[in-house]
Order: sequence, then structure tokens, then C-alpha cells
Amino acid sequence: MAAGTRELTVDLGERSYPIIIGTGLIAQTGKYFLDRGFPIKSPILLITDSSVVDLYAEKVEESLAAAGYSVTTAVVPSGESSKSLEMLDELVGAALQAGLDRKSTVIALGGGVVGDLAGFVAASYMRGVRFVQMPTTILAHDSSVGGKVAVNHRLAKNIIGAFHQPEFVLYDLDTLASLPMREVRAGLSEVIKHGLIWNEEFVKWCDTNASALLALEPEALGYALYEGCKVKSIVVSRDERENDLRAILNLGHTIGHALEAVGGYGELLHGEAIAIGMVGSARLAAKFGYSPDIAVETERIFRKFGLPVRIPSSLSTDEIMSAMLHDKKFSEGKMVFVVPTAIGSVEIRNDVPSAWVTEIVDGLREGDEQP
Amino acid sequence: MAAGTRELTVDLGERSYPIIIGTGLIAQTGKYFLDRGFPIKSPILLITDSSVVDLYAEKVEESLAAAGYSVTTAVVPSGESSKSLEMLDELVGAALQAGLDRKSTVIALGGGVVGDLAGFVAASYMRGVRFVQMPTTILAHDSSVGGKVAVNHRLAKNIIGAFHQPEFVLYDLDTLASLPMREVRAGLSEVIKHGLIWNEEFVKWCDTNASALLALEPEALGYALYEGCKVKSIVVSRDERENDLRAILNLGHTIGHALEAVGGYGELLHGEAIAIGMVGSARLAAKFGYSPDIAVETERIFRKFGLPVRIPSSLSTDEIMSAMLHDKKFSEGKMVFVVPTAIGSVEIRNDVPSAWVTEIVDGLREGDEQP
Repeated sequence: MAAGTRELTVDLGERSYPIIIGTGLIAQTGKYFLDRGFPIKSPILLITDSSVVDLYAEKVEESLAAAGYSVTTAVVPSGESSKSLEMLDELVGAALQAGLDRKSTVIALGGGVVGDLAGFVAASYMRGVRFVQMPTTILAHDSSVGGKVAVNHRLAKNIIGAFHQPEFVLYDLDTLASLPMREVRAGLSEVIKHGLIWNEEFVKWCDTNASALLALEPEALGYALYEGCKVKSIVVSRDERENDLRAILNLGHTIGHALEAVGGYGELLHGEAIAIGMVGSARLAAKFGYSPDIAVETERIFRKFGLPVRIPSSLSTDEIMSAMLHDKKFSEGKMVFVVPTAIGSVEIRNDVPSAWVTEIVDGLREGDEQP
Repeated sequence: MAAGTRELTVDLGERSYPIIIGTGLIAQTGKYFLDRGFPIKSPILLITDSSVVDLYAEKVEESLAAAGYSVTTAVVPSGESSKSLEMLDELVGAALQAGLDRKSTVIALGGGVVGDLAGFVAASYMRGVRFVQMPTTILAHDSSVGGKVAVNHRLAKNIIGAFHQPEFVLYDLDTLASLPMREVRAGLSEVIKHGLIWNEEFVKWCDTNASALLALEPEALGYALYEGCKVKSIVVSRDERENDLRAILNLGHTIGHALEAVGGYGELLHGEAIAIGMVGSARLAAKFGYSPDIAVETERIFRKFGLPVRIPSSLSTDEIMSAMLHDKKFSEGKMVFVVPTAIGSVEIRNDVPSAWVTEIVDGLREGDEQP
């Protein structure tokens, strides 16, 4: 079942770019490169991972080759551990050996990990070459907007990176069919987040269309990714360098990142961790005097999508609190949180007492079902 | 003997910044930070190298501490090999442990290596924090303008980097007194280069004032660094991202980088390698029908400053040519050179036959004295 092709522009002045969402797009990769005037003589580096390469890399290579481009494919191991400086070093070596010049392009074919890593290669190789994203996960709709690229340091996630916008994003919905169900749910968590921070109507639409989305029905999925990308795009357009507004995109991420860090990046998927984090932030809202219904409703929706809303019992509150102190979302020593004020709107609080956070983390234990 | 303080603005719109050149500036570091509103609460990371740390780091730390700032100093081994991803990894670890936040500053106290490395730390830590340069060599006047920062890959120099402009540059001439004579000469090579590409009058002034410059007379040195920075600043203002004009700054660098690479980054200093390279480019000019006097005059001036104008006999032409093929100053497979058209002006040629280059490299052998 095909879906209509949707196109969205991320408005960033001279760095503006389109996100094209639809079915059957991979086979048209070469056409998109030609239409946009990418130089034929400059070699392309296609970066993908071990779980994606066998599924889609050949189709991308064939389409580019048919259009006259020279492509070299570099495969990194699937998973967060590939977001490292060692992998950057290897990929820069691959780019040099493939003869990439300053007019060359780096393509990210894969999920968020490949996007972040390949994006940082594109940002730093020769101080910046063209970058094209071809997301193959739902979660990657998030990282495909806004140009935040990075690798991890052993002491902190995403701490070494850049802002580097892609030339365009080619989002082929067909690639999502191969996603494991758990990743589908986790990806939709980030889609719903975009509704929670900006668009109550879209949250309601997700709620109503939960079964179509979980069944990966292309028309519903195309619409949801378009709307999710649109919210992010509006926010990023107004604050490209994350000076203020862009921080609202971190709803659920302060607790979420800490859960990922303590769990060793793998126990919980990113989308799962931030679902728990968003329930935590919604409970924080009640502390600030906002309606306790926000937390109830947030939790209900995530449960409907089969997402976790409680912290696994294996993770201790002390470890989680300590991990938050290493998180970069603190400014001048103050504790900063994105807090919902209603479904579809949030505010940034830089006055959150850590005692409240400890209490909420404690209250989010598995088996502890009071709100 | 003191010199008047000179100030120059590098004009890059909202990224514009001043370069302050004078004596006794290090002791005023804290004052400059306060005057520019750098936040007291955000820790500072001072990056320097093993040959500079004992001379000036304490003075910088004391001045910042007296102004109320918290500073952590990280020391890297002196030399080109510190421009590596491994060192980036270590320094990001140091930044995290020192608690640097998004409003923090990274200071580069040292020469070009420290500037390039610390600049890339500042560019990539948390996707970019403030950067301040405190050059302690003559050569660093070059890297202090234009925001090009980078580390090396084993296959290519400066291949992993960014454009990241400093907030300001504090150039204390007192620090130059500790430079070995060979480094003074090599640094002046890059100063003269700025005259050769843009300002014939300044080349004449350098020629006339060679002995005052080599004696590190502060007034002459302050003027020469101001003029050198000014040329680079004009060029960079017109082409921040090195799309076209900025490439003229690479006069002598195509051959120069190859000599450094084949010599293993150390046999020849950068300024020495590009002096030879500039003589080579001047000879290339004659091939294109420009006056052979350009090469004669270029060679005479570099000899006057005690700089090498011939390729060491230990480096083979084959190796040098092969190293040039790995150099990034090639576009779509064509060989690109900056070629002088007169003293004080250059053009970019992308049509240089490699046979000419081989011939000129052969002709620049030690012991081979014909022009």
C-alpha cells in the first residue's frame, strides 16, 4: 500500500532544506542527487550499519551509479557504541581512500546512530562537506531535523559534535517495514513527544490512530512523521543553535538520558527512556501547580502505544541522580527541566529543586502504581 | 622595550572579533574576560603545551583567578602529533571533569598546534563553546585569524576540523621572546606570505625591516603581526567558508604540505616548508608567462630572513608528488595552485599540468642553484 509523497521545508535561511517523505524513494536516490546539482565527479561516501546494509545499501548504490555517481559504502557495527571518535577516525580514513573532495557528499543510511555519526563525519571531514540523510527508522525523523550531529565520550553522550544541516532528507517509508516492533513503539514515543510540546490536536490524532501507526499503515505513518518533523522544524527554525527555545525538544530527556546512561545504553531504547522521562516531567508539572491530569493523560497515551512508563527496578535512584549531574542540560550549576503546562505546551524551568526530582524518580519505580 | 597596543577587528558579521596585539597583555587576561561579559560561574579550560606551560600558564591562571574565574589547565605534549583525535578525546574528558558547561570558554595558550587542537575542542565540545586564543608564536598570527581549527588523520593533515571563530585573540608580544631563532624565521615566513598575496608595500617594509624583525624588536614585530593579521582578516571576511578567495592564503602550501608530510612533520618547520613552496609557486608563475623576476625576488627575500629555499635532498620527487595527490587542495581531480602574478598579488589556477610541478620540484633540489 503506497502513500502520497509529502515534502516539508526546514526553514533555516541559506541552510534551508527539504524533507521528502513517501514510498519507493530509495530507487530514486540518483534522480534526487541529479536534480539538486550534486557534482558527478565528486565521490560519495555511503555510511550505513550492519543491520541495514543488506536490506537497502545496494538499492541506493545502484540508483546513484545509474545516475553516474561513484559511491563507496562504509559499514559500521549496529548500535550506540559506533558513535565514537574511533569510528570517526575509521570513516575519515574511508573517505580519504575513496577520494572524497570538498564537493563530495556523505550519506547516512540508517537510524539515529548512523545519522549522528555520519553527520559528524560530514561536518568535520575537510571542515564540512555535503550531507544527505536517508532515515530507516521512525526515531530518526527526530534527528533528521535540525542538524545536531555527534559522537559519544566514555563520560557523556553526544558531547562531541556539531550543528551541520543536511542538503536534503529522503525518508522512504518502505524501509520502516523491517523494524522490530519494539523499535516501532520507541520511535513513536518521539513522534508523540513532538505533539506533547507543541500541538494538542496532533496528540489527539495519535491517540485515535494508535493502531494504524503500530500497524505501520503508510498513509498514517507518513502523516505522523510529517507532523512530527514539522513541529521540530518550527522550533529549530526559530533557534538553530539551541540558545533557548530549542531546549523544549528535550522534554523527557533529562531523566531519559540518565536512565540510558545508568542502564548502559541498551537496556532501554532511547524512545522508551524518554517515555518514562516524559511521565516524570509531567509529574513535575503538578509540583509547579499545573493540572495532575497532564501526568495521567501522558501515561495513558504511552501505555496505549505499549511503551514503558516506569523505571526498571534494576536502576537505583542514586545512580540516576548522579548521571543527571553529568548531563549537559544544566546551565551554570542550576537544574533545568522541560515541564509541560498542558498537553501540547511546555515551559523551561531552571529552578527545579533536586529533592523534587529524587522524589519523582523514586515514585516512578516499577510496581509503584500511584500517580 | 614596550610597544603600543594595536587592535584589529576581523569582520565576520555576528561572528566578528578583535585581535589585540601588544606587550604585558597576559597579566590582563582576567580583565579582558570581565570586560567582555564572560560568565564567572562557567569554568574555563586552559589548553597549553609542554613547552609553554612553565613559561606563561601560571600568569594566565592568576589573572583569571584574580578576576573570579575558575580555571583548569590541560597540558598536551608539544608538537604536531598532539593534533589527534586521541588528544581531542582526552581534552573533552578534562573539560567534562572540570565541569565545563555551554557558557564555558576554552583558551588556547600556545602556537598553531595548540590553537588548532584547542579550537577543535571548543568547536565540538557540546557542539561548540566559546574560544579565546592567546598565541605565543609568530606563526600563530596566521591561525588566530579565520577560525580554521582541526586535528590530523594518519593519512592527511588538518582533515578533521571545523570553522570556529574565537571571541577574541590576545596576542602578547612578550611571549615571543622565548622563541628559538629557527621558529622566529619560520613564523616570519607566514607574515611575508601575507604581503606576497596582497600587499606589495608591506613586502617592501618587511625587506627593509628584516633585522628589526629578526631581533624581535617589539614595535616592528607588533606592526608586522598587525599587517599580517589584517591581510588575512580582509581575505577571510570576504570568504569565511573557503569557497573561493580564501584559497589564496594557501600560497606555497601545496608543495609545502607535501614536504612536511614526506619529511614526517618535523624535518621542516611549517614556515620553512611553505617558504620553499612559495619559491616553487613563483617559478610556476613564469611558466604561465608572468615575470621570472617574481621568483628571483621571492627567493631573495626568504634568503634574507634565513629561510630555506631548496628542497632537502633526503626527500624524493616521487614521494613529494604522491603526497600532493593526498592533499585536499584539489577540486574534482584537477590540480590547483595559487600562483603569483606579481609581488603582492596572486591568482588561483586549476589548470596546472602535473608535469610542470614535477619539473619545478626537481629544479628546487638542494645544490641546484639555477632559477
